[in-house]
Amino acid sequence: MRARDLAQEFPTVDLGDDALVAARTMAESGRPGLVVLDEKGRACTVLPGSQVLRLAVPVYVQSDPHLARVYDEKAADELFGKLSGRTVRDLLPDPHDHAELPVVDPDATSIEVAAVLARMRSPLAVVSDGDRVLGVITVSRLLRALLPAADPASEGEPGGPVSNGEPELR
Amino acid sequence: MRARDLAQEFPTVDLGDDALVAARTMAESGRPGLVVLDEKGRACTVLPGSQVLRLAVPVYVQSDPHLARVYDEKAADELFGKLSGRTVRDLLPDPHDHAELPVVDPDATSIEVAAVLARMRSPLAVVSDGDRVLGVITVSRLLRALLPAADPASEGEPGGPVSNGEPELR
Repeated sequence: MRARDLAQEFPTVDLGDDALVAARTMAESGRPGLVVLDEKGRACTVLPGSQVLRLAVPVYVQSDPHLARVYDEKAADELFGKLSGRTVRDLLPDPHDHAELPVVDPDATSIEVAAVLARMRSPLAVVSDGDRVLGVITVSRLLRALLPAADPASEGEPGGPVSNGEPELR
Repeated sequence: MRARDLAQEFPTVDLGDDALVAARTMAESGRPGLVVLDEKGRACTVLPGSQVLRLAVPVYVQSDPHLARVYDEKAADELFGKLSGRTVRDLLPDPHDHAELPVVDPDATSIEVAAVLARMRSPLAVVSDGDRVLGVITVSRLLRALLPAADPASEGEPGGPVSNGEPELR
């Protein structure tokens, strides 16, 4: 199976988009991050959700989260309201480095995608033909494609020893 | 809003569970990681999906993903089949350090949870009362709770400038 067959849609934002819009997109998508596109529409980096929080939450509160208890809900509105007027570019941690983005080409094999994710310790790879983003491949999608068929006899009682919570996006 | 109200179910595995079972749980959950419980059922760390791939994919293929093209699907079965017989403990990168786990108590406020995620650059926090894991809070769940109500007038045309792919778990 090739990367093009595994790619799933994923929310994207542009470098120039409003930071508050990016935060809302993340909130609504149920995803832990967004793919950021540069001026030419090419994937340039992934914006992790925690980075949005780093811009909104004052540094002294990050250092001592118990201080956060002084904030009521109205104060929270103000913290996150201040994202508006900033851009996605402002949210990025460092000058983004394309070389650090886990990108695979559409013809990459599933093992090749696994190798890229393993090496970069990334939860997802961007599938791109250079100019256009086709989608992303998450670790869990990849594992579904790669894992050998289950052999119930070798895994103990049905259901197994794991608590497998129903995935919930919203 | 308090952490206990924001907590969502999340798949867990025990340190002694078979690594292949953990990989399957991750594949089926659609999540990028699993909460790992110690012998007493307390959260001790989060196992990222990429770590499963690191154990399955040979190091020389991780270094040069193009080498992966020599693997056919049968070979992939063998790579991942070798997870069986190893445990979740074998998958963990380093002696896991509880102090590094983003844990919040059930009474933590939403801003407090935001501060913890921001400081630790984590996509999720584990809600625990010390002995028992109540669930996890993802960045996107938290942002839905924290973001001020949208004001469409200040955000351009409906839909906005972002491509907002339908979230897909499987």
